Amino acid sequence: MSLLVVGTVAFDAIETPFGKTDKIVGGAATYISLSASYHTKNIHLVSVVGGDFPKEKISSLNNRGISTKGLEIKENEKSFFWSGKYHNDMNTRDTIDTQLNVLLDFNPQVPEDQTSPDFLMLGNLDPDLQAKVLDQMKARPKLIAMDTMNFWMDLKLNKLKENIARIDVLTINDEEARQLSEEYSLVKAAKKILGWGPKYLIIKKGEHGALLFNKENKVFFAPALPLEEVFDPTGAGDSFAGGFMGYIAATNDVSFDNLKRSIIVGSAMASFTVEKFGTERLEEITSEDVQKRMQSFMDLVQVDINLIDA
Amino acid sequence: MSLLVVGTVAFDAIETPFGKTDKIVGGAATYISLSASYHTKNIHLVSVVGGDFPKEKISSLNNRGISTKGLEIKENEKSFFWSGKYHNDMNTRDTIDTQLNVLLDFNPQVPEDQTSPDFLMLGNLDPDLQAKVLDQMKARPKLIAMDTMNFWMDLKLNKLKENIARIDVLTINDEEARQLSEEYSLVKAAKKILGWGPKYLIIKKGEHGALLFNKENKVFFAPALPLEEVFDPTGAGDSFAGGFMGYIAATNDVSFDNLKRSIIVGSAMASFTVEKFGTERLEEITSEDVQKRMQSFMDLVQVDINLIDA
Repeated sequence: MSLLVVGTVAFDAIETPFGKTDKIVGGAATYISLSASYHTKNIHLVSVVGGDFPKEKISSLNNRGISTKGLEIKENEKSFFWSGKYHNDMNTRDTIDTQLNVLLDFNPQVPEDQTSPDFLMLGNLDPDLQAKVLDQMKARPKLIAMDTMNFWMDLKLNKLKENIARIDVLTINDEEARQLSEEYSLVKAAKKILGWGPKYLIIKKGEHGALLFNKENKVFFAPALPLEEVFDPTGAGDSFAGGFMGYIAATNDVSFDNLKRSIIVGSAMASFTVEKFGTERLEEITSEDVQKRMQSFMDLVQVDINLIDA
Repeated sequence: MSLLVVGTVAFDAIETPFGKTDKIVGGAATYISLSASYHTKNIHLVSVVGGDFPKEKISSLNNRGISTKGLEIKENEKSFFWSGKYHNDMNTRDTIDTQLNVLLDFNPQVPEDQTSPDFLMLGNLDPDLQAKVLDQMKARPKLIAMDTMNFWMDLKLNKLKENIARIDVLTINDEEARQLSEEYSLVKAAKKILGWGPKYLIIKKGEHGALLFNKENKVFFAPALPLEEVFDPTGAGDSFAGGFMGYIAATNDVSFDNLKRSIIVGSAMASFTVEKFGTERLEEITSEDVQKRMQSFMDLVQVDINLIDA
């Protein structure tokens, strides 16, 4: 099945308590596609970069089966750049610099032969741009997932809510769920947000795992793997989304049971990303590593209780 | 199997964003015993109260099969009193008032016929008093669990560490694990603390669940149930410990697999406690409620992945 991924392809400069990087390749769509590529092929990326973006990085995406036909290259402009510094708890960070560059007048163009993808993942991006992609769909994908962040809740809440009504799965973190819903309880937040249209809400809680809610008040919880060290959290949420949608595309199954499986896959992929800076881990792991990691996730919550005996 | 529970029996006055209480019955040993009583009988409580403590509250403990032979009543003194106010996030609280009263010269006396219990749960208490109880054991219990808090890490760290070397299971929260071990990573914290002697470490993460570590680096994660509303977190950790030790005593099985089951039981009991002020929920639920709640916990993480297909 085909998966269309829309989002940023960019440069990041990251500082964590463990060290700092120069400009390295990042961006939501980069992490999403790389992560998805461990589970499905036929991935198509829509994004924009400047002439400064290394061609060999584009080739390495292609080598993982990711089509970059929809990756616009503006040779005379510079790529989107973000620089941030994580606090000691690794849960909070300060943005040091944001240079929109090519994003300033980005007008996403989905290649004609990709306007009817089986699955669509809208990475975090200006809600106006996410809407433009939705407008270009010639047929309704089997599942549309969308990520966003607090920044757009502050700036473009109405447009964001319009988009939320048009998609199937919204992925946000716990603080964003609270901000968006104006409810402190995540259960109440989920009810409210699901009332706006989407079939599913995924609340990402970082080191505390992720929750999946559906409209019938069913809830599933996927833990995060307790790690010795979280080296760099950048891209964890995008890797999660990529694993999630990659597995759904591979299995072509949008049942609640399969969404549960897909969340475990997403959690496993995110657990790799945070082990090194940037996309390094996502580019070096093997399918065997992924299988082993998923087994660790299953083992983590595996318990057998005979409730009658309790 | 017999379970000896040592800890405070006290009065609390609690304020949360949902309301406030006058003096109500609280204390670690109260929550532990009540919670354990849903799973096992033959529970013996060692504690101290003043003449102001309502006799009918003692009777209601007895009615749930909890022996209070070891509950000293100092008729001319007042019971331990704690008053606190929770912040909006329910994870942090300010202590408004602490009146030690009977605790000031408390010298725990384990009744002679209880000095060889099958299982021992040391609730949060001055480490010197916890040690005095350990000293009174005529035979080594099959499993000794101990709870403590940051307050004792600040004040009596050496004594606390001595106790940790004498027990089997330490239960603390995530911040306390970090303070005690001087490690930010909970995995590293667990390794360090388990190096001091205990077989198991349980790290309680409140609304984010609980982790169980053993010396062989095995880890199990029990989620917390996402609740519409957390009404009053007081006693959640003690209810968890009570459910945990109650189930172990009932099953007389200290294998890692059974500890995993016991943690789910503990989590289920804690999820009741927070639904109302004080011990109210723990006194009104039925065994059927407990069974249903445990089923909800199992359902929350239930997923079936065929890893070969992934």
